[in-house]
This record gives sequence, C-alpha cells and structure tokens, in this order.
Amino acid sequence: MASGKILVAQGGGPTAVINQSLAGVVLEARRFRAIDQVYGARHGVRGIINEDLVNLTHETSLNLEAVANTPSSALGSTRDKPDDKYCQEIFKVLRAHEIGHFFYIGGNDSSDAVRIVSLEAQKAAYPLRCIHIPKTIDNDLVGSDHTPGFPSAARFVAQAFAGANLDNASLPGVYIGVIMGRHAGFLTAAAALARKFPDDGPHLIYLPERNFSMEQFLVDVKETYQRYGRCVVAVSEGIHDASGTAIASLLAKEVERDAHGNVQLSGTGALADLLCDEIKAKLNIKRVRGDTFGYLQRSFLGCVSDVDQREAREVGEKAVQFAMWGQRDGSVAIKRSGNYAVNYELLALEAVAGKTRVMEDEFINASGTGVTDAFRLYLQPLLGAGMPDAHRLRFSPVAKVLK
Amino acid sequence: MASGKILVAQGGGPTAVINQSLAGVVLEARRFRAIDQVYGARHGVRGIINEDLVNLTHETSLNLEAVANTPSSALGSTRDKPDDKYCQEIFKVLRAHEIGHFFYIGGNDSSDAVRIVSLEAQKAAYPLRCIHIPKTIDNDLVGSDHTPGFPSAARFVAQAFAGANLDNASLPGVYIGVIMGRHAGFLTAAAALARKFPDDGPHLIYLPERNFSMEQFLVDVKETYQRYGRCVVAVSEGIHDASGTAIASLLAKEVERDAHGNVQLSGTGALADLLCDEIKAKLNIKRVRGDTFGYLQRSFLGCVSDVDQREAREVGEKAVQFAMWGQRDGSVAIKRSGNYAVNYELLALEAVAGKTRVMEDEFINASGTGVTDAFRLYLQPLLGAGMPDAHRLRFSPVAKVLK
Repeated sequence: MASGKILVAQGGGPTAVINQSLAGVVLEARRFRAIDQVYGARHGVRGIINEDLVNLTHETSLNLEAVANTPSSALGSTRDKPDDKYCQEIFKVLRAHEIGHFFYIGGNDSSDAVRIVSLEAQKAAYPLRCIHIPKTIDNDLVGSDHTPGFPSAARFVAQAFAGANLDNASLPGVYIGVIMGRHAGFLTAAAALARKFPDDGPHLIYLPERNFSMEQFLVDVKETYQRYGRCVVAVSEGIHDASGTAIASLLAKEVERDAHGNVQLSGTGALADLLCDEIKAKLNIKRVRGDTFGYLQRSFLGCVSDVDQREAREVGEKAVQFAMWGQRDGSVAIKRSGNYAVNYELLALEAVAGKTRVMEDEFINASGTGVTDAFRLYLQPLLGAGMPDAHRLRFSPVAKVLK
Repeated sequence: MASGKILVAQGGGPTAVINQSLAGVVLEARRFRAIDQVYGARHGVRGIINEDLVNLTHETSLNLEAVANTPSSALGSTRDKPDDKYCQEIFKVLRAHEIGHFFYIGGNDSSDAVRIVSLEAQKAAYPLRCIHIPKTIDNDLVGSDHTPGFPSAARFVAQAFAGANLDNASLPGVYIGVIMGRHAGFLTAAAALARKFPDDGPHLIYLPERNFSMEQFLVDVKETYQRYGRCVVAVSEGIHDASGTAIASLLAKEVERDAHGNVQLSGTGALADLLCDEIKAKLNIKRVRGDTFGYLQRSFLGCVSDVDQREAREVGEKAVQFAMWGQRDGSVAIKRSGNYAVNYELLALEAVAGKTRVMEDEFINASGTGVTDAFRLYLQPLLGAGMPDAHRLRFSPVAKVLK
C-alpha cells in the first residue's frame, strides 16, 4: 500500500494552462481520504534532488483557483533532462520523504523521467505510483489528440496573425512571423486560423515537417507579392534544409545548445532577420518586416482558450483518479470523442516517453506551404469561445474627376 | 459656406482603435443635414493624390461598428510625409471633388500635413475645414494628456511583461523585451504596470529620454541578477548613447531608412540580440533571451483598452462637431478632467504639427531605469477594465530529510 503523501512537479517550457493541471492534482487529491499531504517540488526534478519541496496542502482553494488561471509554471520549471543516475537521485528523495504517488506535468522529456523513476521504484520494490500529466505548446506528444497548452498558444498565434495581416494590409509589404516548434509544426500551422477573407494572410506557411529551400521560398514570396501586393508568412523556428540543418543555424555566429544538445532557436530574432535580408536583397521589395513571437506565445497574460483551461484541469484530476484507482503507472492522454468532446485514457509510459509526434500528412497541403481543411476542423474547436473577429469596409469606389 | 462633402483618411502606423475614430467621423457626420457624402481615401494622403477614394456613406452602421472594433487602419495607411508640393496635390484633389471638410487621423507627421493643406486652402480662398484627429501608440503628441491608440498598446505591453515575468520566474535567467518608440518612452515605460509583487519584473527599464551606456547597463543587469537570481528588462527600440547614436544602429550592416530619414528600428530583432550577446559575453550568464515585441504590440487582435476604444470614438465624433460648429481648423486633444474623466479641445494645428512630446521628468525615476508613482497613476486608468491578474502560490517549505 502506497503512503498518504503525493508529490507534484512541473517541467519544461511553461504554458498558459499548466497551473490548471497543478490545481487539478491538488484539489482532486484532497478529496481522497488516503492522501494526507500534497507536496510540490520547486523547479521540477531539480527541486526534487535538491529537496526543495513545499507543502501544497497549506494552500487555500481560492488561491489555487487564482493560480490555475495564471500562466507559467507556478512551482517553477527546469530544463534538466534526467538520465538514469539523476532518476536514482529523484527516487532516493521520494523514498526519504515517503512519497507514494509522483505526478510530473511536462512534455516528452518529462514523461521519460517519469518512466525511469517508475523503473527505479520497481527495481527497489518500493510502492510508488508514477503518473505523467501532459503539457506542451508544441502538441508533439504521441498518443494524444492534442496536448494541454497547445490550444492557448495556437489561439495566441491565430490572433497575432489576424492582427499582423490587418497591419500588413494597411501598410503593404512582406511580413514574416517566426513561431516556436523545433520538430512539430502544429503551432506554426495555427496561423492559418487567422484567415477570414480569401486574400487574408498568412499566405505562406513553412513547417519543419517539410524541407525548406531558400530558392523556392523566394519564388513563393515573389508570386504572392505579385498577386496581392503584399505577403504575410508564418515560419517555424525549426525549418531546416534537405540535409536536416536548421536554417536558423546557418548564420549563427556562436551556436548555443541546451542540455539536450539542441541549438537555441527561441529568444533570438536571427531567423526572421535572415529571411528578411534574403527577400530585400533578392526580390527588391522595400518594406520587409520580421517578428519573432518568442516567449509571448506561451506566456502572454490574458490570451487563453477556455477549452484548454478545462482540459488542463481535467488531466490533472484524472491523473489523481488513475493513480488512486488504477493498478499501473502511465501517461494521461486526451482522446477526441465528438465534435467537440474528449475522454481521458492512461497510456503506458513507454508509449509516450521520449517520442515526438509531428504533423500528420493529411494536415499539410500539397505545396507544403499551407494547411488542409482537415487541420482547420481539427484545430477550430480547440481555440475556445470568444475568438475575436476581423471586419472590413466594403469599399464603394468614387469615380475619379482629375484622371 | 463649405460643401456637403467630407473626406476622411488614416495615416501612419495602425493602432488597435484607429477605426473607432473613423466610425466616429462617419456616423457623427451623417447626423448633420449639411453633409451629403462621406468619402474615405485609401492609404492616407497617397490615396488622395491618386484619387483612390471610396464612398463611406454606402457603409451600413452595423459594419462600421464591426470595423470600429477591428484593429489597424481599415482605409489603409501610408508612410508618405507630404511636403508643400505634395500638399498642393492633395488640395487639388480636394477641390476637384468639392470636399468641404478634411479629417486626417494620424500622428504628428499627419497633423503637419493637415496644417499645410489648411494653409493651401486659405491661400486659394477655398472654403475647407481641416481637422487633425490624434492617433499614435507612441503617445508623443504635444498638448494632449494622451493619444488614442497608446492605452491599448500599453495594455498589450503590460500584459506581455506580466507573462514574461512569470515565464522568467519559472525558468530563471535574463529576459529582454524590446518595445516600440523612437523618441518617446511612454510605451516602454508601460511595462512597469506589469509588476504586482515587489520582486516582479521588469526590474529595469531603458527609455530614449535617457542616454544609454552599455557599461552601466551591464552593471545594472548584474546587480539585479545577483539580487533576484533573474532579471527582466524592458528596452525602448530608440535607446541611444550620449552622442545620440541609436544603439540599434551600432551593429546594423545595412541601415534602412524611411521617408523621414529615420533608421529602421522595428521589424528586426537586432537590438535585442545585440544586448543579449553583450550579457552572455561579459556577465557569464547562461540563460539570456531577447524578444522584440514588433508589430504585435500595435495590431494584436483581441487586446484592447475599453477606455481607449471610447476615447478614440469620441475624438472622431468631436472632430466632426468642431468642424461643423467651430470657426477654425485644428487638432483634437484629450484633456484629463478627473480621475478618471476627459474632455476634448481643439488645439491650433501649429501647436501640434511636427512636434514631439517625450516623457516628462516626473515620470522617470532618479536612476533612469524605472518609472515613478506619478507615471503609474497616470497610466493605470487608461488600461481599461478587466486587466488580467497574476497569482502565486504561498510557498510553505517542507523540512529536508536527507540534507
């Protein structure tokens, strides 16, 4: 029989709704008589190995609800990617504090940490229930219809591009917006939901699921600019050439890599500037502007999908239920059960851990520079209620007098 | 007696509420029996000299209201800065179409165009009433308490920094956000309204009203980082050294200048990247990220101040009333008359045209890296209703067992 203490932590990049899952765990856990204390680790797995723990049972329900509505990881996060040795340290602390259930809210790296800790507990014959709670704006967890955090970030991207398109229509030129997503283009593709009128941007979308060719890019931009007198482009930070080399790294003077060996893509405007410079130099278009959406797309205070909020809460609640009533460890997954409704399942950790989902082929159009109706139908209900709408004047021309 | 035709146009950078002013002009004008037709020029003064005019009297009230709630200039805008000769062309078209009233919604360059056209009409003894309607996210028009468009952009910046601060607290490091504003730091200073708890960012704010020193910047960042273990910085794109040289231009390979001879500051991430590189190189801090807010801060669909919306509508309405009942040309100004209430006045065009307001000294703190309470009191009521709030857990530490 597991002890009455549970531990929850948050890992990886923050999202707009990751605290909903935290509140879901804490509030649901307190409904179980068998649970005495709910601990939280500060800054993810790093907080565990440092024994930097807090007692979340001391939080008021009201403050937990307020924190649930606040973006970014309230417990703090970490970019540490635990290996076997690191996970042994985690397990040592969990055992020392007599933790019976371990919940880790995070992406595919976090689910891998849960998998290894689960194995450590089995090896030691220590009764520990380990549950991974999904979270990532990249939407790249396998086995889920989508992941909490993605819908709100997608909504931000759609609203941003709807505005950028209006701005670009007002002062015509080329506009490039660079979106997060190293391997999966879901978030970049969300820009397509900004379109209302047939000539609205984004006119071109470049995803990491397709090889990027600078020559073809320039041809695409030129054709669009000639057709509409302007061009709005959504680009994933993860675009790469046929050899797999990230376009962003082509010009990086000093390439920064994270603990996973990945080149730093976010927090720099280099890719947008590179693409703008190419267009200015080769296409002789005067007004070319590039924005890198950066951290705003995952942490902007005040742009959230209510669908995402509810689901993020529910995966936290369900995680506790699976832990208390189930007989195995696992990763909570969202399954679409209607248009629009969802159910929750507990997947095996091995089925999720360390794996990366990318956009399915049926979501990407034939040219590779746009999305299909299947993708629009997939994403639309996730964006939530109250999406703002863009309106136009119906121009009624006045006859010229002088010319 | 002026004719029954009026012409309205929009100039300069779009804002979230510039179409409120357009709707205000059109809807109010139609209440006057003396006005037959309301024309609009597409893409500002350029549309006038090209006779690219539309009849706004054909718009439905419902669509005008919908467009009013849509960001960015619905008629299209222009960066053209008319000189005397250009204004003579404008006047020629106005006369040919028997325009009796000319309304131009824009910033200080636009007000200067209105001033010159007004002079042309006087020289020709042509009865033309010319009214400038204020608009600019920079808040840099003299004679106004503030300008329509600024409050909504300020709200975006405050919400963005509130989120960026949470993100930075979750994954500590240095975060730099670069904000629009060449000469006036109002919009950058709005980042200060993101702070709730005493240790919240932005911890440092750099304004174009003060000379920027890279050495002092690095000292400031280092001190803040040592105190809080992290550092959030708001930087105006217009920061410059003691000689007046823009920091952004220090590294620009190929400097782009607009029609006003100004170096391109927006639409590139160069300044943020430069500052991040300096911190990485000199302070040995690992996690340093820079975002350039770019066009999102003026055109994001779905972030607007309701106070700003109402005032932008009113300056459009008042412009028509001043034109129809007043005896002179001028520029509509917002005057604060309570906490919080406003009145509208018509200033002489010469008092506004081509002049630039910068932040008053009483709004900037002694160190030059933050704002005063006077500024907070000034800005707070402009942000409007329903500002989202950030909440924290009240950490209750668990005693260590192993260490």
